[in-house]
Amino acid sequence: MAVGLNAPTELLPIAGIRLGTGNTGTRYADRPDLLLIECVAGTTTTAVFTQNRFCAAPVVVAKRHLQVGSPRALLVNAGNANAGNGQQGIDDAVECCRSLATHLDCQPEEILPFSTGVIGERLAVPKLLSTLPDCVNSLNAGGWLAAANSIITTDTIPKGCSRQITVEGQTITISGIAKGAGMIHPDMATLLVFIATDAAITPTILDRILHECVDKTFNRITVDGDTSTNDACVLMATGQAKGINFSDPASQAYGQLLSALIVIFQELAQAIVRDAEGATKFVTIEVSGGESEADCMEVANTIALSPLVKTALFASDPNWGRILAAIGRARIDRLDIDQVDISINGVNILYRGCVAEDYTEGKGQAAMKPDELRIQVSLGSGDAHACVWTSDLSHEYIQINSEYRS
Amino acid sequence: MAVGLNAPTELLPIAGIRLGTGNTGTRYADRPDLLLIECVAGTTTTAVFTQNRFCAAPVVVAKRHLQVGSPRALLVNAGNANAGNGQQGIDDAVECCRSLATHLDCQPEEILPFSTGVIGERLAVPKLLSTLPDCVNSLNAGGWLAAANSIITTDTIPKGCSRQITVEGQTITISGIAKGAGMIHPDMATLLVFIATDAAITPTILDRILHECVDKTFNRITVDGDTSTNDACVLMATGQAKGINFSDPASQAYGQLLSALIVIFQELAQAIVRDAEGATKFVTIEVSGGESEADCMEVANTIALSPLVKTALFASDPNWGRILAAIGRARIDRLDIDQVDISINGVNILYRGCVAEDYTEGKGQAAMKPDELRIQVSLGSGDAHACVWTSDLSHEYIQINSEYRS
Repeated sequence: MAVGLNAPTELLPIAGIRLGTGNTGTRYADRPDLLLIECVAGTTTTAVFTQNRFCAAPVVVAKRHLQVGSPRALLVNAGNANAGNGQQGIDDAVECCRSLATHLDCQPEEILPFSTGVIGERLAVPKLLSTLPDCVNSLNAGGWLAAANSIITTDTIPKGCSRQITVEGQTITISGIAKGAGMIHPDMATLLVFIATDAAITPTILDRILHECVDKTFNRITVDGDTSTNDACVLMATGQAKGINFSDPASQAYGQLLSALIVIFQELAQAIVRDAEGATKFVTIEVSGGESEADCMEVANTIALSPLVKTALFASDPNWGRILAAIGRARIDRLDIDQVDISINGVNILYRGCVAEDYTEGKGQAAMKPDELRIQVSLGSGDAHACVWTSDLSHEYIQINSEYRS
Repeated sequence: MAVGLNAPTELLPIAGIRLGTGNTGTRYADRPDLLLIECVAGTTTTAVFTQNRFCAAPVVVAKRHLQVGSPRALLVNAGNANAGNGQQGIDDAVECCRSLATHLDCQPEEILPFSTGVIGERLAVPKLLSTLPDCVNSLNAGGWLAAANSIITTDTIPKGCSRQITVEGQTITISGIAKGAGMIHPDMATLLVFIATDAAITPTILDRILHECVDKTFNRITVDGDTSTNDACVLMATGQAKGINFSDPASQAYGQLLSALIVIFQELAQAIVRDAEGATKFVTIEVSGGESEADCMEVANTIALSPLVKTALFASDPNWGRILAAIGRARIDRLDIDQVDISINGVNILYRGCVAEDYTEGKGQAAMKPDELRIQVSLGSGDAHACVWTSDLSHEYIQINSEYRS
């Protein structure tokens, strides 16, 4: 049911990264649900995590381990979030790291654990530990597609993409995978994202790049306004493609790398919305003419989160009054309703706060038909703009979320 | 489908108030959709309106008229919101007031117009004007039940209630009607509420009472977080029951009246949630132990608005992780997750941030079964508390809101 999205057919290996998977047999009988990502010594790794105060045990442990040293491996299980389990959850996550460290001959603190799935159930640690050898034994540089498949939960298709750029005559490769379909909202939603490049990047610069990319992509998508206890987005630079200095943000090399990474981040972020739970529409909401980017984001998110707007999108119903009502309740300091314009897929609907003179219901219905929609709102009071991507609210969303645990 | 709600069978007349209805034939073929409420000279009237910046034309006109003088009549049409129509909408609302004023032999500014329904369609003024005589001719003190029926849109049953109290040996009567089922959220949602008493109350005191009542009732309900362009809550005091001084908020008389009014307001507010679009559950969310009432409200509303919590409620699924995740993203300054308790209908689920020791899935399932649920959250960091009422998110909500205009 994903909107304009196909599963990746090829993901490029990244020198210095190997991936292996296994099936713990806990939640998904017929597919791998445990992923091991191993990175070569000297890899720089940075991550952003959910802002939710109830962050899951693996998030607590991963943050702690990131403080201590340079990760040599990431361990990801799908189906159980290991959240809401108190100290037991922390102990379980640490035990998984310890066991994996013996297999990889490294320190437990060099392992970052990640979990996604149901909250409040204890991790099946014995099953997980007994699956680790399968993950280790299947480690290979070409494991990206299998990895993309192993981390999904309610996703209908795996998500991943790759890109190569030439910087100063040298090829730099980037590959990334992501999972997430519900509980999606800025500040990191129920998503896990792992992106790696063979470029050599210092920790400070890598962190700067990650935050800029996330701000422009994963923090611009919303499905249902709910945020998760487990979200993380990890960026790794193995440094195997040596000799290029990316440390100067003003340099052409830095600009090229950042642009390529933003494309990857955006493709993965949009893939999550395209495969949002029950989605039948992929909707871009552009708000311009605001006094600040924050105002534009607030208006865009208020529209994107309105259940009434989302059900109208599902129905392909040009019920623009709901968009107008959402704008009218957005928490911004000033709104001059007589300056507001609204258009959908290029059809002018509202002009200066009133129905556009040439608007007809027929035009509105035609504009709403495609499964890719662009809602443009101009606030007419400044130069700022912002864009978010969202989906509609369908019967299938209710179906999925009222039956997820059963 | 309303949860634990029956249509009123009797509403008491209020001395000084007459009500009449008519059918404009615009949206509802087989029932009245136009209501006239006439009040005797000397009636004190006060109102609160939607905070949505895109307020409808009748809201603009009603606010303006309230500034000028004492209303003699309220005119309410259902089916068309007269919102998003710019100056034309204002002109149309004023024309209705003018025409009604000639029928009632009063000034146009003594009429308050109200509309509820679809946004962005022009009011059918000629049909509305030609129906005014029916409203005028049917004016009668016993018209409250018919009035409750005439203002509903997606409501499945009309809403109204009455109460009598004895103050200083004298009987004071209160009657009220309300409509609203979707676009419901604090700051006045798609609801119209008209409450009248025969008590004699000064404008200042009446205004104070209205705000206190609304703050404790209509501002504590949320269905979908959307707010409307048209909401209004009107309180009228005809002064026909003379001789009691309600001007001292410290007096027993004032306290008695306020208590009785809060009961009426609460019953109507809860009736709106019980009849919320697609509701199969009536849910009370109590948050205690917060540092401030505002913090408690924020946490309660974040839970109440979470689509994932709402779909779990619909499924009677004790997926309490979603409640926990909602608490974790509430916008409050401080949250000590190790102090948080959660219970549902008395079953302890989370204790000090962890699953309660005696909690079982079976207990959770039993707790979630009834169609009236009480979710209690303790934040463990203060003395403040707050309570909101909400509903679940069902297939029928999607059905109703994707088909409302068709």
